[in-house]
Amino acid sequence: MQNKWIVGVDLGGTTTKLAFISMVGEIVHKWEINTDNSNEGKNITINIAKSIDQKLDELDMNKQKLLGIGMGAPGPVNYTTGVILNTVNLGWQDNFPLRDLLGAETSLPVFIDNDANCAALGEMWKGAGNGAKDLVCVTLGTGIGGGVITNGEIVQGVNGAGGEIGHITAIPIGGAACNCGKTGCIETIASATGIVRLANAELIKEDTRGELKEIYTQLGVITAKNVIDCARKGDPLASEVMAKVSFYLGLVLAGIANTLNPEKVVLGGGVSRAGEILLNQVKEKFDHFAFSAVRKSTKIALATLGNDAGVIGAAWLVKSRLLKE
Amino acid sequence: MQNKWIVGVDLGGTTTKLAFISMVGEIVHKWEINTDNSNEGKNITINIAKSIDQKLDELDMNKQKLLGIGMGAPGPVNYTTGVILNTVNLGWQDNFPLRDLLGAETSLPVFIDNDANCAALGEMWKGAGNGAKDLVCVTLGTGIGGGVITNGEIVQGVNGAGGEIGHITAIPIGGAACNCGKTGCIETIASATGIVRLANAELIKEDTRGELKEIYTQLGVITAKNVIDCARKGDPLASEVMAKVSFYLGLVLAGIANTLNPEKVVLGGGVSRAGEILLNQVKEKFDHFAFSAVRKSTKIALATLGNDAGVIGAAWLVKSRLLKE
Repeated sequence: MQNKWIVGVDLGGTTTKLAFISMVGEIVHKWEINTDNSNEGKNITINIAKSIDQKLDELDMNKQKLLGIGMGAPGPVNYTTGVILNTVNLGWQDNFPLRDLLGAETSLPVFIDNDANCAALGEMWKGAGNGAKDLVCVTLGTGIGGGVITNGEIVQGVNGAGGEIGHITAIPIGGAACNCGKTGCIETIASATGIVRLANAELIKEDTRGELKEIYTQLGVITAKNVIDCARKGDPLASEVMAKVSFYLGLVLAGIANTLNPEKVVLGGGVSRAGEILLNQVKEKFDHFAFSAVRKSTKIALATLGNDAGVIGAAWLVKSRLLKE
Repeated sequence: MQNKWIVGVDLGGTTTKLAFISMVGEIVHKWEINTDNSNEGKNITINIAKSIDQKLDELDMNKQKLLGIGMGAPGPVNYTTGVILNTVNLGWQDNFPLRDLLGAETSLPVFIDNDANCAALGEMWKGAGNGAKDLVCVTLGTGIGGGVITNGEIVQGVNGAGGEIGHITAIPIGGAACNCGKTGCIETIASATGIVRLANAELIKEDTRGELKEIYTQLGVITAKNVIDCARKGDPLASEVMAKVSFYLGLVLAGIANTLNPEKVVLGGGVSRAGEILLNQVKEKFDHFAFSAVRKSTKIALATLGNDAGVIGAAWLVKSRLLKE
């Protein structure tokens, strides 16, 4: 079994990442295909199955080389039944039997979980988690996703909503409206969208100036990357936005760590590419809000696997569950 | 083994509760002894061992009836080594080898954990948790303690500080000083001490009136129970205090539930005896701050075991760990 490969699949709304991964978590081959969400998403599993066969052909390998398929899916998953409960971007109807369909197409054992959970498992296995059995991963992207691992297992929660860290309330009164229907969620502040929102609220004021303001005046819009880049160069307005982001992110992460005292809190996603300028300030606020025994032991770190976390964590699903059986 | 008893011990600063508990978690006999913390706490384990022997004699039973001892201890515990790291009320020096000493005194297998964790395990096994494998227990007493259970296991945390829910920051700026050295912890608001503090801040004002104010004027002091009783009768000042307590407790519990989506959040401890007047308002605020999928699935409930939770959960330690081995 040690010579087998596992197929890791990270299913996204526009692109599907695939990889053959060794039993020790090394990527042997990786590639991408477009996600065809036309025709109620009926081609998605068929295309994945075809693509795996094609890649095996290219490499002159046969299916016996493959132990199974692990997949991270963009939506809440019942990981026992392998059903994806709902998803907005793929064309599928609610309660889509993803695991069984892909299993039928490929004749391989299939295990699925939510994509944020897979990213967390990837970081635990081969990334910043470095084997830590108690780990919280926070993906700071367009929104904020989370994966919580305790005693080496993902915390799914009774309704699959474990790890909904993006919707922890950071501003209880008077916070901005969130897509989830609440207000003041940390997602409205520390996601890429939140950073742009905070910056825009300042940039529309007539008396603001600086590099970020110049970009805004020239292009009419700014991105989270603009804010981060300008903050790195010391632009006061951008720096103030990043200080606010760090304050609330440190507050929320300290609350999570006071509850779980994990070995690490790993920050991933596009916003985490800000690097030290985000990390140092978040650490400072985390230390301020964390209970002393937590402050001394829980580390905040940047994710190290980047876009590979999803496929590697998906492969971990296969390895860990087949080892259990 | 099904006919054996387990000894559950709940060690407190002034009183030690003991019980013989059946393998299905029923209390067969329970009693208390004083905790003798003189002489650097050297008599504590000796007295527990003697008391168990005496009780067996009384019942005309011998030690073969006992499977082992489980103990909840008031301080952070390394549950692998059975060492209690530090405690202020018992006279022991730091890193006290509690498990090994009690094992030597009694010739029985001993398992120890933090007392808040034991209370959580008790509620999981026989109380409000009703067998739920994902459970958060919050003890609202003089301070606020917590026990977090995921996938049926206590979350100890990397430094034993899992479940330090009392020190989650509820008021990030301008909150009251907490014993832990931080400010604005939920313990400064929703513990018995916090409730009294909030009430006193209003009662010292000259223009306040009502039943609680009368008690305060007559006695010079009020208790958390006074506040709760007056709120139940509709006293406006007391009701305002309990509304504030419920707001912040609902906020903090929703944050925890957005992270873990447990089946239940169980409220215990003296303050929880407020019952519906606390529970209904906390639920309302919890619903306001919880992510929709969490709101629909995570229940808030009152603890049902009262003072027995600790000894029952301590007995669970023995049962669960001996079953594993």
